[in-house]
Amino acid sequence: MMRKNKNVVLWAASLLLLLVGCKQQADNEKNALLVIKEQGSFAVGGSVITNPGTFDPITRTPEGQTYHGDHAYIVYQIPDKARKLPLVFWHGIGQFSKTWETTPDGREGFQNIFLRRGFGVYLINQPRRGNAGRSTVEATIKPTPDEQEWFNTFRVGVWPDYFEGVQFPKDEESLNQYFRQMTPNIGPFDTEVITDAISKLFDKIGDGILVTHSHSGGFGWLTAINNNRIKAIASYEPGSGFVSPEGEVPSPLPSSAGALQANSVSMEDFMKLTKIPIIIYYGDNIPDKYSDNKGADGWRVRLEMARLWRDAVNKYGGDVTVIHLPEIGIHGNTHFPFSDLNNIKIADLLSNWLKEKGLDK
Amino acid sequence: MMRKNKNVVLWAASLLLLLVGCKQQADNEKNALLVIKEQGSFAVGGSVITNPGTFDPITRTPEGQTYHGDHAYIVYQIPDKARKLPLVFWHGIGQFSKTWETTPDGREGFQNIFLRRGFGVYLINQPRRGNAGRSTVEATIKPTPDEQEWFNTFRVGVWPDYFEGVQFPKDEESLNQYFRQMTPNIGPFDTEVITDAISKLFDKIGDGILVTHSHSGGFGWLTAINNNRIKAIASYEPGSGFVSPEGEVPSPLPSSAGALQANSVSMEDFMKLTKIPIIIYYGDNIPDKYSDNKGADGWRVRLEMARLWRDAVNKYGGDVTVIHLPEIGIHGNTHFPFSDLNNIKIADLLSNWLKEKGLDK
Repeated sequence: MMRKNKNVVLWAASLLLLLVGCKQQADNEKNALLVIKEQGSFAVGGSVITNPGTFDPITRTPEGQTYHGDHAYIVYQIPDKARKLPLVFWHGIGQFSKTWETTPDGREGFQNIFLRRGFGVYLINQPRRGNAGRSTVEATIKPTPDEQEWFNTFRVGVWPDYFEGVQFPKDEESLNQYFRQMTPNIGPFDTEVITDAISKLFDKIGDGILVTHSHSGGFGWLTAINNNRIKAIASYEPGSGFVSPEGEVPSPLPSSAGALQANSVSMEDFMKLTKIPIIIYYGDNIPDKYSDNKGADGWRVRLEMARLWRDAVNKYGGDVTVIHLPEIGIHGNTHFPFSDLNNIKIADLLSNWLKEKGLDK
Repeated sequence: MMRKNKNVVLWAASLLLLLVGCKQQADNEKNALLVIKEQGSFAVGGSVITNPGTFDPITRTPEGQTYHGDHAYIVYQIPDKARKLPLVFWHGIGQFSKTWETTPDGREGFQNIFLRRGFGVYLINQPRRGNAGRSTVEATIKPTPDEQEWFNTFRVGVWPDYFEGVQFPKDEESLNQYFRQMTPNIGPFDTEVITDAISKLFDKIGDGILVTHSHSGGFGWLTAINNNRIKAIASYEPGSGFVSPEGEVPSPLPSSAGALQANSVSMEDFMKLTKIPIIIYYGDNIPDKYSDNKGADGWRVRLEMARLWRDAVNKYGGDVTVIHLPEIGIHGNTHFPFSDLNNIKIADLLSNWLKEKGLDK
């Protein structure tokens, strides 16, 4: 009797330990501590306005004073035992580094996810945006209610309705956070100011992998042309700025959101984009034929242009892949796949591509 | 012979191991890994502009559209085994969270230092500043060269000269970084908008210790009056906004930088500031009598007003300490003691005060 009781007790104890162990393991994987070797922030790029004359500390008039502006503001974290190539994340239009941080509903974004996967992470705030707001040109900013247009352009739905099966949280607070992750441009876009700052970033940090989104897609191609420390590009829903060699620029593609132009560069510059692996992702709910839903139709021609561009770059020996997520069985993604509800799956796609291309050593 | 050689070899090996071990120990203390349990960012506070009418997704005109703005943008990190009360860091005029991040010459700032010391850290970007630039009111921003004025007001020196023994790096790149840690206000200051957002921050995160700088000194007193989750305040060089009970407001204090006013609040509100420990720090190179160096003279009256305020709060049973760093033998500090060259020593002062007041459990 005692031996039987003892066996039962041992069995129960073992089972309990096993359950506790499994839970701990699951907890560890889900809530693993982030171990950071180094973290900080800095300004890079930009220029200086210098008034003529000599500064007078008593009168403190403008003569001889300076204004350092048009730099990018960079936040970085390097995990312990980091892989060789860091990921450099570049936001899109109306956004800042928040794009990659915790999501509107509080889940981890690509910043944390890829830190956990052993990558150094650099988050860009581009010149004249957000904390890099010290612009060298004057700006007037008017608060113009336009969030319903963004809701549609970001393909969360057609306001006030969410798309069926959309990978976006439907509670009010998430939408509140989503709208508040926008911040205005402080002055007009200046492609040279912007790409120069990010090129200088790569001069400073060395080789890395650029990850772009939407508007920064176009800036990313140009920066990679200018700086061969960019060893690969992953671009989420690039919005414009596809570049072709002079004489080979595709005709503009019409849509209800306006015609999408492509830009030309020299053949010498274009060939630089054939030297690095590039992957482009587009999400769901992109119309496959003309739609008067301007928010979505613009993406139809962008996906089409991306495919034309892929073919052009690959024709010249490049390595461009275009993934249309629904075509590989991943449904419901918005303009922000990397922060959507299924963003772990989206991260896994990127991890696999990096591994396949030998970029994750 | 062989035994002697063997002893020498063993001795040399031991010495080598000892040296390696010591270096590793020193490296570990200096470069200890940061172990983070949770990190992220969010918006808090603010309001919504709503246009009348119904949004039309085809025409996409302004009717029925919204604009969420005037929130603060918060970045947080919680270390493993965090102390109970986090530190909430609030920048001053013209600054953003960078104030507390790595210094102009790349050393760790209070964000990293206090993470290492086991405190949860929240970095504020106040409404209408930097990444929280989505203001609900129109703004025009003109880039006005004024950095030499700031150099003087921040008591780095009297341009172009650094103060003798100043705790600030003298290389050109550090000055470049220092000027670029400024970013403009997007619209006028609105005390209610600002303090409301930070009060809502404490509603969200619970009890904490507020750390203010310069312009946020005044905002800090008001927010603590509004929200008793603020359990203590450490203020570095508060610049304005000292509050006294109606009828007991000190006369303005004249200086070459203008007269410093004090503000009045109800006695009921004032008494709230007697309930929490408060410490105020001022640095070096503050004139002790009227000086026509506007950059420094404004601090003379601020230090004087801080002492009057301390005495008033303590008269009513409060716990305010004012530390003028040179008077305790710490010399050369600028307006930014927490990022100066001796900022570890400045951090130690804060750590000791937190411990003394039982705020570091």
